[in-house]
Amino acid sequence: MNKEVSPGLLGRLRTWGTLWRDIADKVSGADGLDSLNPDLPEEDARKIRAGLDDCLAARGGEVSARARAATLGRAYLSLNEQGRVRFLEILAREYATDHNRVRDAAAALTDVDGEDFSALQLAEARVRDALEPPRLRLLRQFNALPRGIKFLVDMRAELLQLARDNPDLRGLERDLRDLLAGWFDIGFLELQRITWNSPAAFLEKIITYEAVHEIRSWEDLKDRLDHDRRLYAFVHPNMPEEPLIFVQVALVNGLAGNIQEVLDSSSPSLDPEQADTAIFYSISNAQAGLAGISFGNFLIKQVVERLSHSFPKVTTFSTLSPIPGFRNWLDRRLAEGEVGLLTQQERKALGQALAAHAGDGETRGGASKGDFKALIEGADWVGSEPLATALKAPLTRLCARYIVNERRPPRQEGRAATVLDPVAHFHLTNGARVERLNWLGDRSEKGMARSVGLMVNYLYKINEIERNHEAYQGQGKVATSTAIRGLTRG
Amino acid sequence: MNKEVSPGLLGRLRTWGTLWRDIADKVSGADGLDSLNPDLPEEDARKIRAGLDDCLAARGGEVSARARAATLGRAYLSLNEQGRVRFLEILAREYATDHNRVRDAAAALTDVDGEDFSALQLAEARVRDALEPPRLRLLRQFNALPRGIKFLVDMRAELLQLARDNPDLRGLERDLRDLLAGWFDIGFLELQRITWNSPAAFLEKIITYEAVHEIRSWEDLKDRLDHDRRLYAFVHPNMPEEPLIFVQVALVNGLAGNIQEVLDSSSPSLDPEQADTAIFYSISNAQAGLAGISFGNFLIKQVVERLSHSFPKVTTFSTLSPIPGFRNWLDRRLAEGEVGLLTQQERKALGQALAAHAGDGETRGGASKGDFKALIEGADWVGSEPLATALKAPLTRLCARYIVNERRPPRQEGRAATVLDPVAHFHLTNGARVERLNWLGDRSEKGMARSVGLMVNYLYKINEIERNHEAYQGQGKVATSTAIRGLTRG
Amino acid sequence: MNKEVSPGLLGRLRTWGTLWRDIADKVSGADGLDSLNPDLPEEDARKIRAGLDDCLAARGGEVSARARAATLGRAYLSLNEQGRVRFLEILAREYATDHNRVRDAAAALTDVDGEDFSALQLAEARVRDALEPPRLRLLRQFNALPRGIKFLVDMRAELLQLARDNPDLRGLERDLRDLLAGWFDIGFLELQRITWNSPAAFLEKIITYEAVHEIRSWEDLKDRLDHDRRLYAFVHPNMPEEPLIFVQVALVNGLAGNIQEVLDSSSPSLDPEQADTAIFYSISNAQAGLAGISFGNFLIKQVVERLSHSFPKVTTFSTLSPIPGFRNWLDRRLAEGEVGLLTQQERKALGQALAAHAGDGETRGGASKGDFKALIEGADWVGSEPLATALKAPLTRLCARYIVNERRPPRQEGRAATVLDPVAHFHLTNGARVERLNWLGDRSEKGMARSVGLMVNYLYKINEIERNHEAYQGQGKVATSTAIRGLTRG
Amino acid sequence: MNKEVSPGLLGRLRTWGTLWRDIADKVSGADGLDSLNPDLPEEDARKIRAGLDDCLAARGGEVSARARAATLGRAYLSLNEQGRVRFLEILAREYATDHNRVRDAAAALTDVDGEDFSALQLAEARVRDALEPPRLRLLRQFNALPRGIKFLVDMRAELLQLARDNPDLRGLERDLRDLLAGWFDIGFLELQRITWNSPAAFLEKIITYEAVHEIRSWEDLKDRLDHDRRLYAFVHPNMPEEPLIFVQVALVNGLAGNIQEVLDSSSPSLDPEQADTAIFYSISNAQAGLAGISFGNFLIKQVVERLSHSFPKVTTFSTLSPIPGFRNWLDRRLAEGEVGLLTQQERKALGQALAAHAGDGETRGGASKGDFKALIEGADWVGSEPLATALKAPLTRLCARYIVNERRPPRQEGRAATVLDPVAHFHLTNGARVERLNWLGDRSEKGMARSVGLMVNYLYKINEIERNHEAYQGQGKVATSTAIRGLTRG
Repeated sequence: MNKEVSPGLLGRLRTWGTLWRDIADKVSGADGLDSLNPDLPEEDARKIRAGLDDCLAARGGEVSARARAATLGRAYLSLNEQGRVRFLEILAREYATDHNRVRDAAAALTDVDGEDFSALQLAEARVRDALEPPRLRLLRQFNALPRGIKFLVDMRAELLQLARDNPDLRGLERDLRDLLAGWFDIGFLELQRITWNSPAAFLEKIITYEAVHEIRSWEDLKDRLDHDRRLYAFVHPNMPEEPLIFVQVALVNGLAGNIQEVLDSSSPSLDPEQADTAIFYSISNAQAGLAGISFGNFLIKQVVERLSHSFPKVTTFSTLSPIPGFRNWLDRRLAEGEVGLLTQQERKALGQALAAHAGDGETRGGASKGDFKALIEGADWVGSEPLATALKAPLTRLCARYIVNERRPPRQEGRAATVLDPVAHFHLTNGARVERLNWLGDRSEKGMARSVGLMVNYLYKINEIERNHEAYQGQGKVATSTAIRGLTRG
Repeated sequence: MNKEVSPGLLGRLRTWGTLWRDIADKVSGADGLDSLNPDLPEEDARKIRAGLDDCLAARGGEVSARARAATLGRAYLSLNEQGRVRFLEILAREYATDHNRVRDAAAALTDVDGEDFSALQLAEARVRDALEPPRLRLLRQFNALPRGIKFLVDMRAELLQLARDNPDLRGLERDLRDLLAGWFDIGFLELQRITWNSPAAFLEKIITYEAVHEIRSWEDLKDRLDHDRRLYAFVHPNMPEEPLIFVQVALVNGLAGNIQEVLDSSSPSLDPEQADTAIFYSISNAQAGLAGISFGNFLIKQVVERLSHSFPKVTTFSTLSPIPGFRNWLDRRLAEGEVGLLTQQERKALGQALAAHAGDGETRGGASKGDFKALIEGADWVGSEPLATALKAPLTRLCARYIVNERRPPRQEGRAATVLDPVAHFHLTNGARVERLNWLGDRSEKGMARSVGLMVNYLYKINEIERNHEAYQGQGKVATSTAIRGLTRG
Repeated sequence: MNKEVSPGLLGRLRTWGTLWRDIADKVSGADGLDSLNPDLPEEDARKIRAGLDDCLAARGGEVSARARAATLGRAYLSLNEQGRVRFLEILAREYATDHNRVRDAAAALTDVDGEDFSALQLAEARVRDALEPPRLRLLRQFNALPRGIKFLVDMRAELLQLARDNPDLRGLERDLRDLLAGWFDIGFLELQRITWNSPAAFLEKIITYEAVHEIRSWEDLKDRLDHDRRLYAFVHPNMPEEPLIFVQVALVNGLAGNIQEVLDSSSPSLDPEQADTAIFYSISNAQAGLAGISFGNFLIKQVVERLSHSFPKVTTFSTLSPIPGFRNWLDRRLAEGEVGLLTQQERKALGQALAAHAGDGETRGGASKGDFKALIEGADWVGSEPLATALKAPLTRLCARYIVNERRPPRQEGRAATVLDPVAHFHLTNGARVERLNWLGDRSEKGMARSVGLMVNYLYKINEIERNHEAYQGQGKVATSTAIRGLTRG
Repeated sequence: MNKEVSPGLLGRLRTWGTLWRDIADKVSGADGLDSLNPDLPEEDARKIRAGLDDCLAARGGEVSARARAATLGRAYLSLNEQGRVRFLEILAREYATDHNRVRDAAAALTDVDGEDFSALQLAEARVRDALEPPRLRLLRQFNALPRGIKFLVDMRAELLQLARDNPDLRGLERDLRDLLAGWFDIGFLELQRITWNSPAAFLEKIITYEAVHEIRSWEDLKDRLDHDRRLYAFVHPNMPEEPLIFVQVALVNGLAGNIQEVLDSSSPSLDPEQADTAIFYSISNAQAGLAGISFGNFLIKQVVERLSHSFPKVTTFSTLSPIPGFRNWLDRRLAEGEVGLLTQQERKALGQALAAHAGDGETRGGASKGDFKALIEGADWVGSEPLATALKAPLTRLCARYIVNERRPPRQEGRAATVLDPVAHFHLTNGARVERLNWLGDRSEKGMARSVGLMVNYLYKINEIERNHEAYQGQGKVATSTAIRGLTRG
């Protein structure tokens, strides 16, 4: 299957370049912008500057400003990576705010009578105006071009990568984030149910963007759209051919704990009217350029609302989630010497299992130091019944402890410390609780590598969401089921 | 006909209040907000503050913030004018920026090394953050509510009126303008052709919002949607049931000069395939709350593009426009004593016409001072052939001079002075030229009162638009036809 | 308001003639069909015959047959009534079946061995083929033209009128009926809810076609589409701009008995969620050319199903119906001498009321013969309380008797006799029961003239419909409420 | 890829059975029809008869007739093949016309005065009525069920197969054909362009139904929907999820002669604006149950019209077609002894080529008898340049002769003989001409087996279509290019 839906900027040139050509052609004076050296050497950079100046001068009104933006967009798409970096640096540095103007406006603030509310407002408005960089005016023009908003989203995806090593680009990236955050306000998004009757072009993107459990073929996708499955996506009216984020749900009986069973296409499908549980088994962000603009919270809750309405018998809403950081954390602990990882009893059981596995007649007193580490690093134990049995208790316990207790320091002073695992953090922030750990819930290579095969259910209980959210946000308290609580305390 | 489509905020309470009730009910703690005293006395204002604080604290995540916004919106709609003013003042004053935080961030700017671009950017970003008032976060919540964006548009319409006498509200009004300007970016608007097959509810709004030539009945509207007429509107995807701005076009042969003829339903309709001219005879803004966010420029040019495409024989695109400020300006000049208004020859001709009208046998030497003023103030002259003939030349000449030469001082230093007439200013900014004045082009009461019956054609010549726009914007030069030039020079 | 939606065939020429011109132009040899004398004299009739022959010969395949049909359709539309009659007569007589072929095929039937099923089938198929007239092949071509199906529907409307006095046209009319009955099979119709958001052009047709209670204006229509009202129509996918039949429903509390109250726009509207009763107060056929092809039965039952689903609290489904034949029947009985119309007691009460009305002090022994007739013929009694009171009992009783007992002879031997009143017959056939008579339920001029102001509720009880239908269809038994039963027995 | 879109009637039971269950449940008295023995033994056949009788009696009106039809449909779907044959036989034999009634009505025809047109019409109408079998009334009910029309189409597909050996079923099959022919009238079909944005479920059916050049994967399909390709389908509004027939078009420069090149996904795609030729390279009927109801003629011509409109530069419209019967015909001729197949010169050239291929030094006098046959039967010659060269001339000549000259006897006396090849017959009837033969135009296994690798272009010249059609239909004359004419005369 061809996974290459987004063939890079050069690839898109053919399609978009063609589209914008007609718009760009309407304006005179875009001298040489249609035949740049892809590296953007200095003599060509001058043409870019002229084009940017023309566009900002908005000669001929907004319509011709748009035409000039089209010309610049085509120019950008014709550049190679080096050329694009130069283009973005010009935009970032030379079309930033006028620092003197900002400083003057800021200085004027001190002259205002602090009691004069209206004067303060006005003075602040002047600072705000001064803080709007010309590059932002330019970026806005693209929204009026066909697919222009997708162009900006992809430009930001590129900027995010470049800005890591290039602090000068960070201001431009922030401008773009703020612009897109306004345009992708949750109020504009449409929640769409995606089915086998959706456009193939859209489904092809679902296949490409699925980030949690790979969709292996069109038949695999069709199974995931069967009548006991649901797939919902947020879509923006100005880029209807692209999902922003999507979630996959299985309607089942009882809490599902094993992802291979959920995805097994050979198992008979359930009459969804008879299901009592909705399992959210995959949630994927589709647009790298919208990083930091959050929709997931809304998506899950709107889907819960829709499903509650359509299937009154469904009363349990839960995820079946990976624990992406567990193995990493565990490896660090193992590298530090296993100290305190296993209880004495666990160590003893493990020793017996190792003996049984090795066919040793003698009982051993307990696993030696290093045994545990060696076992985890290999993957043989999965095939050994006694070893797997002996590992189940300590790994499950450690995983519960990892999810609930391991924290990263608070970003801002006064805020509560958040949990270390990013998926856990996402769902806890949304108000879910840690419900159940599933031993060997994901036997795939990826599942073993990330979390020694463990998966977790986060439960969304409608009337607890608000309380859980506040307790976590405010005091860092993690809501858990009794069983999980038992594991973390043991 | 019931013109009351927008029955005021209280009227809307029934519909919207009902809609939001279900959303608002999902959240606890909106104590007493659903039974406020409509005057909003201090004890109730406290409840509003508590509600605003809750919403901003976003307890329970964004979904519950939305629920709290719904509660506050319902509360706002339940207030009378006095109550609403109090509500808005609380929002404006108490949820403004933290001035100390702003001042500190501004002060920090001076400590940054002016050569360190990246540090400057960061310091400016901090000022920008500090300048975002909490009230703006609150307003954004409304977009996620059904019809919430229309709620904000109407709230701004109200704020615009209130802020005239209440400077404390101006900051809030500006926040709302900036927010709406982003959301109503031209790239999000859809150009729709409105026909007799459009929803009746939408057409009813066209009837109500038409601001130039009143639509008197559904039959009148049907005539305006006949096959040699076009009506285009800009619509926003989040309020699809409302036009933002709309333009009405007649497909005719030759430049139309008389609005009564254009609107005459009894005249046979033309095969639009045979037309050579598109007359834009009415353009109306429909949303008072979007004042200052401009779409008209784009609307006209997109319609020109569409019509060019559908009707290749149509090569002339022109308005038939009112001259709303002419009579006012003329009256002021008349009050100042008519000095220099009429040429000697015109005065003489007028004298003869007055004599003929009065049935005087004798010829007179010329009109006396005051005659001209008296004639204009009465309306009898329209019915008198000799008087009308004698007035045609001077009024047409004065009108050309008014449109082209009368200026208002530039808003900012260094900018060119703009023309006084607002409709002229709009079309000249768009790059049109003043083409022709039409004597008695609008004999309606309104037409006589505004412009002594004169109408004007502004011509959009595709390949002149950019040049005209620049000359007007840059040096204040008004593009005119030879005929108009003749009149202004005479 | 312009009620002229269907401006007659000549009026449509402009629109359709234009449409079909392009199709017709594709074929050569339509000599002279585009400039016929509207009377269709013999020399022009010859051109019609040539055109019909060409079309049937289908030279150039089906596509050019369609082009020739377009030419003939345009020719038909260009004729006056006399010309159209001649056209239809040619089609009816000269393009009928080949009687000899039919007779031969029919004769061959007698030679077939009655035991040989397959041979019988084949012989019958030959007769069936011979019975298909060429004119039917021609009519089918029109379906492939834009709006061609509406052309045929309107042609049948015209044929139905003409065939009354012209038996030669009846065969053609029957062909058309059979053709349209297949194409308008209930399985193809779409039930649409019509709202204030429906296209104005469609709503304009609702105003025109409403046959029971006139819609007086667009505001009146808007009231009938308010949130406690429903309007449903059947629409065919090939003529989506036309309703076929539509029904209007009021959601109310309790059985409504007065049509003026139902239609009163000033009464406050009900929250439809709180209603317990759906009143079907108007049902109108919109297409005269589909007479005899019945949809009403399906329409009512599908609407009942939809409303049950949307409004679970609505448990009573009833009409509020006119009794169109009551007054006519009563007038005949009055003309025959009032014998047996009134009981002795009613006559006495009427006499007293007349005396009271006349201000006579004396009591009278009873109304004289002729008094009743005179009263009914005048309309004064409505304004007189004593007279109205005295008339209520006998008129209500007579009306119940008229609806339930008055019959027309069965159409076919062995079938049960049907009731005389056409509206009663329609609802009884559908399985409804006669529920309640409403005294002065329709005080409009039309209501007084048709049924002395009486209206009736027919009740649709879901679990009785089948039984009622069978009893009426099979034995002519009319289902009634206890109250109605009391009136008819009295 | 799972090609099983139509999983047989039993497979559909799950889906449709479920759908119709709710409708069927509304009616009482469908005793035992939901638990039949799949073989339909006599005691269960009785239940079917009772159900059919109930449905025809239409107790409870049309709505309950529909419910009973649903019950019968579910019963039919629950049967195995033997059971279904019994069901259909009951329907065919026991619900046929009443032969006595038909005979009486037919006999009455002879009593009518032959001059009395109106009486004749009436008498014929009575025969027509008598000829309508009850089973037809039953079949019509299915159209009102969801997907009922597809049920009938599939039932006819099954009947067509069964009726070959079971003449008793033929009458029922004909009834169904006539019913479906009316409902699938060309006027109801919608021409849809199918793109990569079409619903995946619809595209999946295109993959399955493609009958000419197999679609091997979703990627293959995507290539066929690329921007220089078009795929059009006829769709019926009542079964929108199913194509009826579809055609695939390649926009190219010059007449394409090689199908592998057309289908090659690795070749760069053309800017369709630059194409001058549209190649119809595949046309597939999708519904076996609509056999004998012809759409192909209309489909090609409507697509030609659309393409002409969208791409004014495209002036050549041609097929690239298989010659399915050539090899068969050739094999019969070879079996008869090659007599007269090759000219002397061709035989000589072939002998030389055989020698060259065998590496024989000596020249031979000519191929021996049997050599030609042996070569054709093997496939080795394709890889041998000298052999292929020697075979090209005679095979091309013979193929031209096969297409143009080989005929099947006329179906009816007086009609012209039609050509033997079915694809040729289809396009010649449509008015195309035989344009060019393409040597090794299809090297696929299927292509070699059907037509020794040859393909043919049929050319649609807009202004010749009518003339070609008439000449072929009338006198059996086949239109050809000069080149083809040369080959057939040689």
